[in-house]
Amino acid sequence: MPNPELEGLSNFLYEMGLLKRSKRTGWLIAGVDNPETIAEHSFRTAIIGYLLARMEGADPCKTATLCLFHDTQESRIGDVPLVGKAYVVTAPNPQVTADQVAGFPEEIGQAVRELVDEYEVRESLEAQLARDADKLECLIQAREYQAQGHEDLPPWIETSAAALRSESARQLAEVCRQVPPRQWWKAFAESYPRAAKPSGESLRPVQEPSGRTHQDPSEPEGARRT
Amino acid sequence: MPNPELEGLSNFLYEMGLLKRSKRTGWLIAGVDNPETIAEHSFRTAIIGYLLARMEGADPCKTATLCLFHDTQESRIGDVPLVGKAYVVTAPNPQVTADQVAGFPEEIGQAVRELVDEYEVRESLEAQLARDADKLECLIQAREYQAQGHEDLPPWIETSAAALRSESARQLAEVCRQVPPRQWWKAFAESYPRAAKPSGESLRPVQEPSGRTHQDPSEPEGARRT
Amino acid sequence: MPNPELEGLSNFLYEMGLLKRSKRTGWLIAGVDNPETIAEHSFRTAIIGYLLARMEGADPCKTATLCLFHDTQESRIGDVPLVGKAYVVTAPNPQVTADQVAGFPEEIGQAVRELVDEYEVRESLEAQLARDADKLECLIQAREYQAQGHEDLPPWIETSAAALRSESARQLAEVCRQVPPRQWWKAFAESYPRAAKPSGESLRPVQEPSGRTHQDPSEPEGARRT
Amino acid sequence: MPNPELEGLSNFLYEMGLLKRSKRTGWLIAGVDNPETIAEHSFRTAIIGYLLARMEGADPCKTATLCLFHDTQESRIGDVPLVGKAYVVTAPNPQVTADQVAGFPEEIGQAVRELVDEYEVRESLEAQLARDADKLECLIQAREYQAQGHEDLPPWIETSAAALRSESARQLAEVCRQVPPRQWWKAFAESYPRAAKPSGESLRPVQEPSGRTHQDPSEPEGARRT
Amino acid sequence: MPNPELEGLSNFLYEMGLLKRSKRTGWLIAGVDNPETIAEHSFRTAIIGYLLARMEGADPCKTATLCLFHDTQESRIGDVPLVGKAYVVTAPNPQVTADQVAGFPEEIGQAVRELVDEYEVRESLEAQLARDADKLECLIQAREYQAQGHEDLPPWIETSAAALRSESARQLAEVCRQVPPRQWWKAFAESYPRAAKPSGESLRPVQEPSGRTHQDPSEPEGARRT
Amino acid sequence: MPNPELEGLSNFLYEMGLLKRSKRTGWLIAGVDNPETIAEHSFRTAIIGYLLARMEGADPCKTATLCLFHDTQESRIGDVPLVGKAYVVTAPNPQVTADQVAGFPEEIGQAVRELVDEYEVRESLEAQLARDADKLECLIQAREYQAQGHEDLPPWIETSAAALRSESARQLAEVCRQVPPRQWWKAFAESYPRAAKPSGESLRPVQEPSGRTHQDPSEPEGARRT
Repeated sequence: MPNPELEGLSNFLYEMGLLKRSKRTGWLIAGVDNPETIAEHSFRTAIIGYLLARMEGADPCKTATLCLFHDTQESRIGDVPLVGKAYVVTAPNPQVTADQVAGFPEEIGQAVRELVDEYEVRESLEAQLARDADKLECLIQAREYQAQGHEDLPPWIETSAAALRSESARQLAEVCRQVPPRQWWKAFAESYPRAAKPSGESLRPVQEPSGRTHQDPSEPEGARRT
Repeated sequence: MPNPELEGLSNFLYEMGLLKRSKRTGWLIAGVDNPETIAEHSFRTAIIGYLLARMEGADPCKTATLCLFHDTQESRIGDVPLVGKAYVVTAPNPQVTADQVAGFPEEIGQAVRELVDEYEVRESLEAQLARDADKLECLIQAREYQAQGHEDLPPWIETSAAALRSESARQLAEVCRQVPPRQWWKAFAESYPRAAKPSGESLRPVQEPSGRTHQDPSEPEGARRT
Repeated sequence: MPNPELEGLSNFLYEMGLLKRSKRTGWLIAGVDNPETIAEHSFRTAIIGYLLARMEGADPCKTATLCLFHDTQESRIGDVPLVGKAYVVTAPNPQVTADQVAGFPEEIGQAVRELVDEYEVRESLEAQLARDADKLECLIQAREYQAQGHEDLPPWIETSAAALRSESARQLAEVCRQVPPRQWWKAFAESYPRAAKPSGESLRPVQEPSGRTHQDPSEPEGARRT
Repeated sequence: MPNPELEGLSNFLYEMGLLKRSKRTGWLIAGVDNPETIAEHSFRTAIIGYLLARMEGADPCKTATLCLFHDTQESRIGDVPLVGKAYVVTAPNPQVTADQVAGFPEEIGQAVRELVDEYEVRESLEAQLARDADKLECLIQAREYQAQGHEDLPPWIETSAAALRSESARQLAEVCRQVPPRQWWKAFAESYPRAAKPSGESLRPVQEPSGRTHQDPSEPEGARRT
Repeated sequence: MPNPELEGLSNFLYEMGLLKRSKRTGWLIAGVDNPETIAEHSFRTAIIGYLLARMEGADPCKTATLCLFHDTQESRIGDVPLVGKAYVVTAPNPQVTADQVAGFPEEIGQAVRELVDEYEVRESLEAQLARDADKLECLIQAREYQAQGHEDLPPWIETSAAALRSESARQLAEVCRQVPPRQWWKAFAESYPRAAKPSGESLRPVQEPSGRTHQDPSEPEGARRT
Repeated sequence: MPNPELEGLSNFLYEMGLLKRSKRTGWLIAGVDNPETIAEHSFRTAIIGYLLARMEGADPCKTATLCLFHDTQESRIGDVPLVGKAYVVTAPNPQVTADQVAGFPEEIGQAVRELVDEYEVRESLEAQLARDADKLECLIQAREYQAQGHEDLPPWIETSAAALRSESARQLAEVCRQVPPRQWWKAFAESYPRAAKPSGESLRPVQEPSGRTHQDPSEPEGARRT
């Protein structure tokens, strides 16, 4: 018979699996048929939170962790969409979290509750940056859906940008609105015809798109079997 | 014209978007047609890492952050599946990361490189727990696919369990193998017929599945508009 | 500039499009990755309602129509899942409907509000049968997911069956639990090897699986160009 | 052993499940990869039929029911696409329906056959409006796919509009072509920044997008537990 | 203005794109929600045809090509499912092909028509083996869906096996029914824990699952940049 | 116990099933969420190869077969995307094939190895045309994704066009860039309103979009039961 506290942790991890199946509802309203999941959103939000904290001199790992947990309540309350704000009242997130971690070892449950409380009251710099990360992720995703052809995303971009509070998030949002999603791979695409030519292939160092020569991955000391 | 360092960060965030579209290849081999993405896997891995670190007395936010970045190189090298290990040699992850962050502000790029280095050398307790989190997430996902009917997942469960190094991860894995994915919502399901009965509805406090009475969400001081 | 009342109707029809993109959340909890939409559920619910009303001597077209509108509020309030019942309070469905039809021509809006009111108060026989149809559809869908391999559906089957009120719905549910989803096409499958044999094909009347000979569709008077 | 007539009904309900898995083929031709199902189309068609009948003084529940059954034969004959019209001859819909309901209790089977006959001969006002609803639904869906970026939908819009017979359907189609799919939620989106601001939240009545103040859903007498 | 004959070829290639979006309808009946496309089926059918022809001493490239074109008519007539055989009459495949290639350069159109004629009359050994390949592919796919948990596939396996005519196809089908889909990667999975261990990695030749030592991919003369 | 050589063939066929589940990674980079599979790409590539060989006087069935096998190694090495070229070294395709066919009857394994060798050394006209077919298929698919709204596909179109070597492939690519994907069905769409009109339907010969009158499919000698 399993240790009840370990079972509490196990139950929570299976509950988090639901966020890997749950679509973000805002995109459904915007006409995206098969949008990202809450888990996918949370992943990039946490990456963004880490970087914003580095830019603003906050604790980066703490900020990333606040991001990681910021939507974990949605396994129970769902992702109430913008058109639902006028019709739906939910229990406060800390209350949901308290129930989710009720079976945890006491000190671990307490730690998770404190993370969620910190995010919700929005007083610490880390919590404010985590909130900015949440909004910036939405803006970036909206830009990506635009590049797929979707026409109705400007409200998501405008609203997200307007909600940003930190200077770093605002500047980064501004750049994300100027730089197209394809920018990062354009250098690769331009170098591709050379790289792809069928004969005369060689394992000698290739010119990196970024302009730096990197180590030949066929060299034993640099290579590894993934 | 955008600030080049902000553009470097923006490029990275769009590159991370690819992990929201990229499926984990192992599940394709196992016969799962439309499996989880790398982003979804990374999300729950980071949650697990946080909890394992709490259990083992390591730094939980640091561990979660190591998890968050542990597969970020796969936007470039892909997710080489088990049947590819014999045929594919990839550049080391730190080299890929170095290229990904080459356009970052110097100190932020350095910080990300150090995170990836720490994870790859597997010397710190946090790095070892992050690796355990990666494996444990795989085990849990395999269990969830089993509950969907998939028959061919035992190798993923066995291999993941065998790779765990920390005592906490081993114990948690053992419990995750005993407890079915449905366990967390069974209490809700059992209370549902009462909750769902069409008349006599009331906003009075309901009995929580966990046995605790929680605050009535219709009470102004506890409620909030999400 | 469009007639405002026609615009009110048009807006509602585009709003209903959201139900073609919105997944039923209960199945996500049960582990179904890409489940049916609310629109799909409503379609078969209305078919069932029509048949139940025929069985019980109620108004079949009225019952089907009550079914058709029974979840139309979910474009605004979402499909609150069972694990959310304890945490979420929504505006009453009639209030949501009132807002949805506010721009309609007055008498049409009034008619839709009355349909929803009738369904919600559950006093008319038609409304009670529509509710039974809703539950029976859930049971049938759960049975179909079981045939796909999903293991965790018994709670949906049990709960749905237990919620049925009319004798006809109870009897039909009992049969749906005994008869497998494949039953309807088994007769076809058994006749397939004969029908599919590559030579000796003929357009002469084929033996219907149900045992009746039907008219040769190549006969001009019976055929039509779809 | 199940009652054979109930088994006939049960078989039909499982057969209708196929329409929840079957994509409308026209959209595949138009380049939509993962389009709506026949069940989803039928759902909104029936909603439209109800409204058109209200506008034209026809029987709204009857019209909705004709819509509901108008494609039920496609579980057997498929959805023959426009490029197939020149190559495929199908049995008449009434013949397919006759086979589908052959195992029903006699009077219920008779009723369903009469519904389909009525729709197919297109003589009653209700049948003509049901046909208009079918076409109008296609037009609306095409408009929604356009907002997703698809370029090749004008033929569906033109052909559907040209096929409409009733004055109400023509007027409504005209408005649906002027009003964008996003219109219904724009008022919500504009009110969102206020509603979403993280502090100063209150449960006091919010201003409805439609301009009317609605009852506070936290008030016990108005609220309900869904 | 494009050359009309090249335009005829171009049109055909875009028409073939529809087979990449069209699902095989039989699996929808069997309860598979999101099954393989006609293009995917045709791909493996052609691989099987090649191998069967090698086994039976027929022309392997000819057989593969017959397989490749065997369902190309379905862009126009759809994939009529087993339950539709009694209700649908289609133009003969050679007639559809004649229309599809009407704009081709004369001799190329003629060649494609002859391929389809040869397949349809089923007289040549190659045509008979192509038909067997079609059936065997169906059997193999059914087995794969079974490993995903689907329960209702035995009729597809039985019917496909019973339709096979050549000795080689019958023997191969027998083996495919005994050998599980996971067999091919089991050797890899068993060798994985060793290959995956995080330290002591080396680029020296690994032991192949098949037992043969293969060349080290890091050796310049053997390696290539894909 | 199965014959080991038949088991070798069976294993390969199940391995090929993985290509029906594996998405082409280039499209994921381009922002396409749910792109084509390797199997789908290979299907149309082989069709194109057949036609190019007819145009250039090469062996069409041989060319189609080379196309069919050209990506069969990707079940083991994956589809290394353009951004991975700088980071990933894979075993040569002939080596992968050698392992894949190691369990085959000797002469069949030898034949498959020779096909792959011929494709890889790119010396025969057939191999060069198969390579052109691979590139042309990519161009055509990119055009189709553009018609769905995707903005970032020009690099795929340019790079594919630039890689073409044969005159026929270059000319055909030029036409495919001028002719839109919708061209093939436009004639059908224009004839549809007539064909679809609900009364006065007849089974008499219809005017073919291509301008030729074809045989009435209801005539017994021309018709067949598919």
